Amino acid sequence: MTDKFDVLGIGNAIVDILVNVEDDFLVAHEIPRGSMQLVDEETSDRLYGQLGAAIECSGGSAANTIAGLASLGSRTAYIGKIKNDQLGRVFDHDINSLGITFTTEKDVSGVSTARCLVMVSPDAERTMCTYLGACVNLMEKDIDPDMVASAAITYMEGYLWDPEHAKAAFRKAMTLAHNAGRKTSLSLSDSFCVGRFKQEFLHLAEHEIDILFANEEELLMLYDTRKIEDAIKAVQEHCEVAAITRGAKGCTVVSANEVIDIKVSQLNNLVDTTGAGDLFAAGFLHGYSQNLDLETCGRMGNLTASEVITHMGARPDVDLKQYLADNL
Amino acid sequence: MTDKFDVLGIGNAIVDILVNVEDDFLVAHEIPRGSMQLVDEETSDRLYGQLGAAIECSGGSAANTIAGLASLGSRTAYIGKIKNDQLGRVFDHDINSLGITFTTEKDVSGVSTARCLVMVSPDAERTMCTYLGACVNLMEKDIDPDMVASAAITYMEGYLWDPEHAKAAFRKAMTLAHNAGRKTSLSLSDSFCVGRFKQEFLHLAEHEIDILFANEEELLMLYDTRKIEDAIKAVQEHCEVAAITRGAKGCTVVSANEVIDIKVSQLNNLVDTTGAGDLFAAGFLHGYSQNLDLETCGRMGNLTASEVITHMGARPDVDLKQYLADNL
Repeated sequence: MTDKFDVLGIGNAIVDILVNVEDDFLVAHEIPRGSMQLVDEETSDRLYGQLGAAIECSGGSAANTIAGLASLGSRTAYIGKIKNDQLGRVFDHDINSLGITFTTEKDVSGVSTARCLVMVSPDAERTMCTYLGACVNLMEKDIDPDMVASAAITYMEGYLWDPEHAKAAFRKAMTLAHNAGRKTSLSLSDSFCVGRFKQEFLHLAEHEIDILFANEEELLMLYDTRKIEDAIKAVQEHCEVAAITRGAKGCTVVSANEVIDIKVSQLNNLVDTTGAGDLFAAGFLHGYSQNLDLETCGRMGNLTASEVITHMGARPDVDLKQYLADNL
Repeated sequence: MTDKFDVLGIGNAIVDILVNVEDDFLVAHEIPRGSMQLVDEETSDRLYGQLGAAIECSGGSAANTIAGLASLGSRTAYIGKIKNDQLGRVFDHDINSLGITFTTEKDVSGVSTARCLVMVSPDAERTMCTYLGACVNLMEKDIDPDMVASAAITYMEGYLWDPEHAKAAFRKAMTLAHNAGRKTSLSLSDSFCVGRFKQEFLHLAEHEIDILFANEEELLMLYDTRKIEDAIKAVQEHCEVAAITRGAKGCTVVSANEVIDIKVSQLNNLVDTTGAGDLFAAGFLHGYSQNLDLETCGRMGNLTASEVITHMGARPDVDLKQYLADNL
């Protein structure tokens, strides 16, 4: 079978509510700065009620990555669960407007489309409280076997690894991908996710995942070490490729025989770090799916991440294909 | 009675859907560049489906003005109709988060909260297609007599002057305001509005409105002349004060005995002109309600308008009180 898609993303389909916040607010509500935490609808509504005027736009970690890939010109598909409500239609519209194939059946009743309160501090750090809503209804049956089999890479977010039937959907996708001779990819998403599911994530890294995305903190936590060199050695034995993001320092890309540090070539004006990791994965996978060398993939990831942090929101503001052509 | 509010705004309560567009799209759909037109839900959905990824945020002309006034430190209230749906809750949250008193009863059934497709061209001109939804259910009974009587100025948008019961609500508010010894203010909103309701707007200007806001084109159309001097003479005989916005040239403020041209002191980087008129009115009315001289009011209007055009969206991105302190 020839590839129909370069990358299929599977993740939590979320609408972001972006709002500026002072760090005092996070302290008063005991929300760890920089974290993502899950909240129930009541807590989400209560926090929202205490926050200032906001902007709504489509989000979701893997969905942001796929949006970036679509903007780069990759052929893309997405699987995630929304309800057919107003915010769900916002998510649906934005995904479709980018030419991304998105056919997951929408809920018509039950809990509403997921919302993420993205609280942006004055120094551009983002802290997130997510109400998962309809996302938790993603099931094995939502994984379209033909879609997985026809995608060169199936990319999944660690955030999704939580409800039991989402894990089952995750496992089904990985098995289908490997049976079709395709690659699997995972983002560790968040150090709290890694802390909570360390053994399961270790098992995934060792046995199921070809291309791993993590930031330094997540990788250190996964391998239970304080030394990045040790974590890198460990991941070299587990995954074919790992891309480790290091904030303003750039990234380190790792394969069985290589460890390549790739600096950020230009530091842009920092406004909101939301989506930096998601868009790094987009740039990297766009290069990887074209069989470019790992250093170029890493440079592409650095560049697409550097665009998204210059403005509010986790999706690119510009045509990334042009942006890459101008800056690579 | 002492003033409880500096300004009460009455208008169409709308959530904006902001999207970048090429002028070709407007031409292909025969939508006049720079206009605001009303569309039905089907047309709104059809256009939306053909447009790119968008950002949602609270809008509505008078609501934007009131949001600006709240950011400047004025005591504010707002009357407008939303449904208790997801986009309605977005509007409600944003108004409340700014400290604006907003108690209009929400619809629990029927058509949904109003949406405006704001299509922003590469040169920052905005073209709007509005589905009024729940806005058309604003009735006389929604005008709270105590609220009007306790507001120094009641400000209304010309956009609202369309459904018969909205006109009745408008008339009730003007009568209540004048009976309580308060001022009334109107924005002509749009040259299409003026063209459609010229005789009624003339009657309002002559008999009901103390403070009139218009751009040059709207004022010329109102007084059926091609010479701005003639239009200014006419409005001097009708209204106590008129503030005429002239784009990059600034504004002209007019009273019975004065015609004051006030240039824009600095030209900012133009991104999206949405809300320029609304925020001009906010700055002007903030000064006016503090009994500042007309030239200062005009300078304040120029400044608050110049902030909102530097970013996407029709509400201020910064604390306007501080912005004014730094720039006036």
